[in-house]
Amino acid sequence: MSWSIANQGLSADTLLNLESIFALGNGYLGVRGNFEEGYSDKEIRSIRGTYLNAFHDVIDITYGEKLFAFPGTQQKLVNIIDSQGINIYIGEDMEPFALTAESVLAYERNLHLDKGYSERKIHWKSPSGKELKLHFRRLVSFTTRELFAIHLTVEPVNFTGPIRVVSSVNGDVSNYTNPNDPRVAAGHSKRLSVVACEARGEYVCLENETMASALRTSCVTRHEWAGDWQVETQAGETDATVTATTSLSGPLSLTKWNVYTDTLRHEQRLVDTGIQVQESLKHLSFEDMLEQQKHYLADFWKRSDVVIENDLSLQEGIRFNLYQLLQSAGRDAHSNISAKGLSGEGYEGHYFWDTEIYIFPVFLMTSPDLARQLLLYRYSKLEEARERAKEMGHAQGALFPWRTISGTECSSFFPSGTAQYHISADVAYSYIQYHLAEEDDAFLLQYGAEVLFETARLWMEIGHYYEGKFHIDEVTGPDEYTCLVNNNYYTNVMAKHNLKWAARSFARLQEYDEAAFQALCVRLHVTGPEADSWLKAANAMLLPYDEKLGINPQDDTFLRKAVWDFENTPPEKHPLLLHYHPLTLYRYQVCKQADTVLAHYLLEDEQSHETIRKSYDYYEQITTHDSSLSSCIFSIMASKIGYKDKAYNYFIETARLDLDNTHGNTKDGLHLANMGGTWMAIVYGFAGTRLKENGLSLAPSLPTGWQKYNFRLTFRGRLIAVTIREEGVELELLEGEALELTLYGQSVTLGNEKPVTQALQA
Amino acid sequence: MSWSIANQGLSADTLLNLESIFALGNGYLGVRGNFEEGYSDKEIRSIRGTYLNAFHDVIDITYGEKLFAFPGTQQKLVNIIDSQGINIYIGEDMEPFALTAESVLAYERNLHLDKGYSERKIHWKSPSGKELKLHFRRLVSFTTRELFAIHLTVEPVNFTGPIRVVSSVNGDVSNYTNPNDPRVAAGHSKRLSVVACEARGEYVCLENETMASALRTSCVTRHEWAGDWQVETQAGETDATVTATTSLSGPLSLTKWNVYTDTLRHEQRLVDTGIQVQESLKHLSFEDMLEQQKHYLADFWKRSDVVIENDLSLQEGIRFNLYQLLQSAGRDAHSNISAKGLSGEGYEGHYFWDTEIYIFPVFLMTSPDLARQLLLYRYSKLEEARERAKEMGHAQGALFPWRTISGTECSSFFPSGTAQYHISADVAYSYIQYHLAEEDDAFLLQYGAEVLFETARLWMEIGHYYEGKFHIDEVTGPDEYTCLVNNNYYTNVMAKHNLKWAARSFARLQEYDEAAFQALCVRLHVTGPEADSWLKAANAMLLPYDEKLGINPQDDTFLRKAVWDFENTPPEKHPLLLHYHPLTLYRYQVCKQADTVLAHYLLEDEQSHETIRKSYDYYEQITTHDSSLSSCIFSIMASKIGYKDKAYNYFIETARLDLDNTHGNTKDGLHLANMGGTWMAIVYGFAGTRLKENGLSLAPSLPTGWQKYNFRLTFRGRLIAVTIREEGVELELLEGEALELTLYGQSVTLGNEKPVTQALQA
Repeated sequence: MSWSIANQGLSADTLLNLESIFALGNGYLGVRGNFEEGYSDKEIRSIRGTYLNAFHDVIDITYGEKLFAFPGTQQKLVNIIDSQGINIYIGEDMEPFALTAESVLAYERNLHLDKGYSERKIHWKSPSGKELKLHFRRLVSFTTRELFAIHLTVEPVNFTGPIRVVSSVNGDVSNYTNPNDPRVAAGHSKRLSVVACEARGEYVCLENETMASALRTSCVTRHEWAGDWQVETQAGETDATVTATTSLSGPLSLTKWNVYTDTLRHEQRLVDTGIQVQESLKHLSFEDMLEQQKHYLADFWKRSDVVIENDLSLQEGIRFNLYQLLQSAGRDAHSNISAKGLSGEGYEGHYFWDTEIYIFPVFLMTSPDLARQLLLYRYSKLEEARERAKEMGHAQGALFPWRTISGTECSSFFPSGTAQYHISADVAYSYIQYHLAEEDDAFLLQYGAEVLFETARLWMEIGHYYEGKFHIDEVTGPDEYTCLVNNNYYTNVMAKHNLKWAARSFARLQEYDEAAFQALCVRLHVTGPEADSWLKAANAMLLPYDEKLGINPQDDTFLRKAVWDFENTPPEKHPLLLHYHPLTLYRYQVCKQADTVLAHYLLEDEQSHETIRKSYDYYEQITTHDSSLSSCIFSIMASKIGYKDKAYNYFIETARLDLDNTHGNTKDGLHLANMGGTWMAIVYGFAGTRLKENGLSLAPSLPTGWQKYNFRLTFRGRLIAVTIREEGVELELLEGEALELTLYGQSVTLGNEKPVTQALQA
Repeated sequence: MSWSIANQGLSADTLLNLESIFALGNGYLGVRGNFEEGYSDKEIRSIRGTYLNAFHDVIDITYGEKLFAFPGTQQKLVNIIDSQGINIYIGEDMEPFALTAESVLAYERNLHLDKGYSERKIHWKSPSGKELKLHFRRLVSFTTRELFAIHLTVEPVNFTGPIRVVSSVNGDVSNYTNPNDPRVAAGHSKRLSVVACEARGEYVCLENETMASALRTSCVTRHEWAGDWQVETQAGETDATVTATTSLSGPLSLTKWNVYTDTLRHEQRLVDTGIQVQESLKHLSFEDMLEQQKHYLADFWKRSDVVIENDLSLQEGIRFNLYQLLQSAGRDAHSNISAKGLSGEGYEGHYFWDTEIYIFPVFLMTSPDLARQLLLYRYSKLEEARERAKEMGHAQGALFPWRTISGTECSSFFPSGTAQYHISADVAYSYIQYHLAEEDDAFLLQYGAEVLFETARLWMEIGHYYEGKFHIDEVTGPDEYTCLVNNNYYTNVMAKHNLKWAARSFARLQEYDEAAFQALCVRLHVTGPEADSWLKAANAMLLPYDEKLGINPQDDTFLRKAVWDFENTPPEKHPLLLHYHPLTLYRYQVCKQADTVLAHYLLEDEQSHETIRKSYDYYEQITTHDSSLSSCIFSIMASKIGYKDKAYNYFIETARLDLDNTHGNTKDGLHLANMGGTWMAIVYGFAGTRLKENGLSLAPSLPTGWQKYNFRLTFRGRLIAVTIREEGVELELLEGEALELTLYGQSVTLGNEKPVTQALQA
C-alpha cells in the first residue's frame, strides 16, 4: 500500500539522501534518518543531525567589501545533541553490528506515513557467521513535542552468547559545511559546547550551549531494558554512554526515550523540565506512543489526504510530501518552516517566502490552525521588520527579511536577498488569504491590519509616481537570474494587492470595531488620508504590458535583453547558477523559476486569459526551473490554460523530487516548498480551486491517464471531500454546515443531505 | 617659495594625514612619513608603512554566499620591513627624544618638491632641560630605486654628555585594518614573516616572506656614523638594532642606507643583491644622492611644471600633486599606479581605471616613457584578462579586472566591481590616446592591436542587436550609486570608440607591415570579417538620448527613477555610501561621480555642444562628488561649456584635496586619480587642450582672478611651453622640430624662431 516509503539502498549516495527522506519531526524537533550504529563504510560523510526548529546560533558574516546595512551577523540552525547512537556487539569476540552488502540476509526499511514512525528490519550475519534479527523503530512524537524514542529488538537466529549494547548520547556535535555550494553553509561548523553531562538516577542528562546566541538545549535520556541486562552508565566530558550486557538466547528489547528541551520554549531549568516530561511519559509504552501517533495522523489524513487512483508512484509522492510538511511546520511564535524543514541543514535552517507562497496555502485549506500559527510567527517579527526598513533608509514601513530565523536579515548577497522586497507583499498575501478563508475580523484587527498597514507603507516609501503611474524601482522578483530591476511585474502586482487590501482593511475595521480600530490607528499613526494614498497608489500601479507580444514583461527592460543561448548550453552546465557568474545570467532573458507566471497564478484576475496564456508560452521557453519552486507553478498555470500534458508533466517533476533526488541535493534536506507545490498542483491546478472574495471555487479537470483522484478541503469550519473521476466531480460535505461555493463558475449549495455532482467541463 | 610643503602639526589627526602627505617614493619603493622615533602619544594608531609597488600577498576572500566566478582570492599590498626606526637617548639618565608640544622649542618639517627629500629640523628641550638640535632628512632615490636613506645630525645646545642612538630594522610588521570602512582592508593584517635576520659585516640584513604568494623581500642596511661612536649590532629573531653611543659635545651625524630588493624584480639572492647595490653606492655621500635627486627632478619639472601666478596655495597644490604622481608610477611590467600610490594602504594597493583615465593623460603629455610603461603593464596582464572573460562565460575577448595587482580580479563586490566592464574600454582608450600622441605604429603592432582586438571582442560577446541598435546590458558605469544597468551611456560610447579603433587599427596595420600583421592575425584568429563586425557594431551602438530633456540619460531607465531627496539629507549623511544601503542608492537618480559627464569629456565629438551643456546642467544637480574622481571632470567640462566660476570652484576642490584632507581619509593614502585630475583641470580644462586625430589643439581661457599660468607639454618629441595671461596665449617650442597644431580651432605652425601668440578667446 502507498502508506509507506520503503528503501533498501546502502550505497553512499542513497544513504545520504535517505537521511533526509527518513527524517522524523514534529515541527519542534527533527531527527535525520541516520543509522543508530553509523555506517560501515567510514568514507561516507554522513550528515548526522538533530535539530530544534529555530534553535540557532548567531554567526558573523564576513565580506570582502562590507557596505552600509549589510547584515553583520546571521542565524544558523544548529545541529544539537545526538541521541541516535546505539551500537551492538555479539559473541565472545564482540563482533560489532554494521550493515554491509555481504552481511545483510534480509533488510527492510520503512517510513510509515499513517503510523508516524520509521523502522529497519534486519536479518544480519556477522563475519563469523552468527545470525541476528534486529528491528529498529523510531518516532518523533506529535503529541509530546520533546520526545524522540527508539525501540530496538534483537533476536539471535543461530547462536547464543554474550551481547553488549552501547547506547550513547553525544554532545560533541558539529554542523555540516561545504564551501563550494552556495546553498549550504561554508563555515562555522562547531557552534555548540557541552555545559553539563551527567547521570542523574535512571537518566542521562546533557546540556549544550551555543557560542554566541547563548541558547541552551538539553537532552534527557532514559533507557528501558526488557530482559536481564547488566547496565552500566558512564558520563564523560561531552558524551554519556549506557552499556548493557547480557547473554542472548531469545528476543530482548530496549526502548530509548530522549527528551529535548530548549531555552526558547522552556524555562531555564532545562534538565529538570526534561525529567518532568520523562516522568509524565513513564506510564506509556513505545506501543502506546505509536497509538498516539496513529491517532494524530488519522485526524491529519482525514483532513489532508489526497488519493490518486492507479498511480502508486505519484500516490507515494504526494503522501510523502504532505507528511513531511506536517513534520516541518513550526507550532510556536519562535518557529516557522525552514526551506528544508527539520530534515537537513541546507540554507542553514532559514525561513523564506517559501512558507507564505508554497506551504501556507496547504495548511490554510487542510489545517487552518497550523496556518494561523505561521501568520503569528511573522507578526512576532514585525518589530525587526520595522527596524530593517529604517536601516535600509525608509522613514516607515516594515521590510521582512529575505531569510531569517529570529527575524533579522540573514542574507549576505543582497541582489537575490534583501532586494527581494516582494517578501513583504508575500507575507501580506498570506494574511489576505487567511482573511478570505476565515473571514476572521478579530484576527484582522489584532494582527492582520498591522502587517498590512506596515507593508503598505513600505511600498509607499520605495515607490513613486512617474507619468501618472506608480513605479517600484530597484527590486528583485522571484526569478533570481534577473536581479535589481525596475517594475518587476510580480512585485508590482503583489504590492498593488497589498496596498489595496491595506486600504480595504482600514475601511472594514472601522465598521467592525470602531473604538478598538481607533486605538490601533493611534498606536500606528495611521490616518484616513494615508489609507486613501494606499488605494490611490494601488490603482495607479504600473503593471508592465507589451503590446506587441501581448504579455506582461518581467520588468521594464526584460524583453530588450538578448535571449539566453539555450541551444549551446550543454546539460552539464545546469543548474546555471553553479556554472555562470550572476552578472552573466542577469544579462539575458533566462529565468530560474516562475516569476510573472507565478504572479498570474496568485492574482489571476489582474490580466486577461489571453495575456496569461501568451505570457506562459513566452516564459516557458526561457525558464530553466533550476529552482524547485518553479515546476509546480507551471503545472498549475498549464491546468488553468488547458495545457493538460504540460500540467501533468510539470506535476510529475514536483511529486517525487526528493524521493527520486531529481535536484541532486536531497542529502542537504527536503525541498519543502516544492512539497507544498505538489498539493497545489493538484488542488489549485487540476482541480482549479481558488479562494477569493466570493469564497471558494473549483473547476476540476482529470489529468489524462488518471481514472480518479480525490482530496479534502477545510473551509470555514467545513470539511469537504472532492472527488474527480471521468464521470464527473463530486463534492461532499463531511463536516459543518451547508455552504455556497462556485463550481465551474456557477454557484452551488453544498448541503449535508447529499453530495453535489456535476459532469467535468473543459 | 612654493617648492616645499611645510607643516608643524603634532595632533593625532594631523600626524596621520602627514604620514601620507610626507610619503616618499619612486614608483618601486614607498615609505610613509612616519617619525623615526615614533610618536610620543602612544594613543595615536600610526600607520607605519614601507611598500614595494606590486609586492603583495594572496589572501582568501570569504563570502556569506559565494556564487560562481566570484574571486576566491585577492592580492593585497603588504607592509614590509620597517627601516625607519631611529631612537635617541641623552644624558646620564638617557632621556628619550620624543616630540611633544611642550618639548619643542622650534620645529620645521618640509617636503622639498624640487630637491626630492623631506626633512625635520627640531630644536628640542628634554624634560630635564637639555637642549638638542636635530635634523632628519630622508630620501627615496629616483636613480637607485632600491634605496631609502636617512640622514641625521644631532647637536647639543646647552649640555655635553652621553648620547645613545638606537637604529632599528624591524621585520615584524603588519598591515593596517579597519572593519568599518569598505575603502580599507578589514582583515588579514599579518601577512609577512621573517625568514632571515642577521648582521653580515657592516650590514644588517633582513629577509621576509609572504604567507601565501611566497614573495620575498629583503632590506640590507648600512650605517655611516660620523664621529667617534661606539657601535654595537644585535640581530634578534625578527629585528636588528644598531646601537651607537658617544659623548656629545658638538654636531654628530648618522647616515642610514637602506636597500630593498624583492623576488619580483631581483633574482632569488636578495640579500646578496642588496649588498651589491650598497657596495655600488659606497662612493656616494648623502649629499651626492641629494644632488642626483635634484638633477632628476630638474628634468621632471622642466617637462611637467605648472605655474599659477599669485596663488601660492593652488601653486603648492598642483606641484605637490604632480610630485606625488611621479613618486607613485610603477616603472616595470609588474607594477602600475595604485589608487593611493605608495603612500598608504587604502584599497589594498590595487590598480583601478584611475590610472588610464586620470593619471595616464598627465604622463602621456609630460613623461611619455612613463605613460608607455603603464601600457606595458596592462599588456603583460592580457592573458589574465582573457582567462577572466572565459570564466565570466564569454567565448572570447579580454575582460580586465576592476581592481588588481597581479592581473586577476580582486573585487569581491561585483555590482560596483567586475560589473564595471568599462575598465576594458578605458584600457583601450589609453592605447588609443597613446597612438594619437605618438603615432607609433610599431607599438600599435606589437602591443596596442592585441589589446584593442581582444577588448573589442569582449563588447561583441556581451552586446547584441535590438531593433537595429547595438545594446550592452547589465553593466555598471563609473557612477557606483547606479549599478547593473542596460546601455550605460559611458560604457556604450567608450565601447563604440574601442570597436571603431580596433577596426581602424586592423586596416592601418595591414598597410603598415602586412607580413607582421598577418602573423598577428593568425595568432589571434582575427579576420577581416570580424574587424568589419566591430565597425558595424560601433556604428550601430545605442547612445541613449532623451528628446524631452535634450540630454544623454545615464542608462536606459535612469531618468524614470525618482530623484534623491537631497534637501532632506543632512550633511552628516555624506558620503552617502557610508550611510545608505547600495540598494537604496541604486533606486534613485543620484550620482557618486561624473559618469555621462565624464564620457562627454573623453569623447566630446559624439554629442552636440547643446546636449553636453544640458547634460552637465542636469547631472550637476544630482551628483554628490562622493568620489574623488568627480570634481576634476566637472571642472574640465565647466571650462568647455564656459561656466568659468564652476570650473574654478571644482578645480579648487581637487587642487588641495589631500593637503587639506577634504575627503577625511588622507591618512589611508593620497588620492592619486584626483591629483591627475588637478593637472587635467588646468591643461584640458582651463587651457582647453585636446589630443585627437588631427593632433594637438588648445583653446585656453584664464580663470577669473588669475593673472597668468603656464605649463609644459611634451608631444611627439617636442617640448612646448604654454603661457596664458590676460594679454593672450603664448606657445613656445622649447625643444624639437616645428609643429602644426590647432589654436582656437585655427591651425598654427609653431616653429623654433619665435613663440606663437594670440589674444584670448571666449
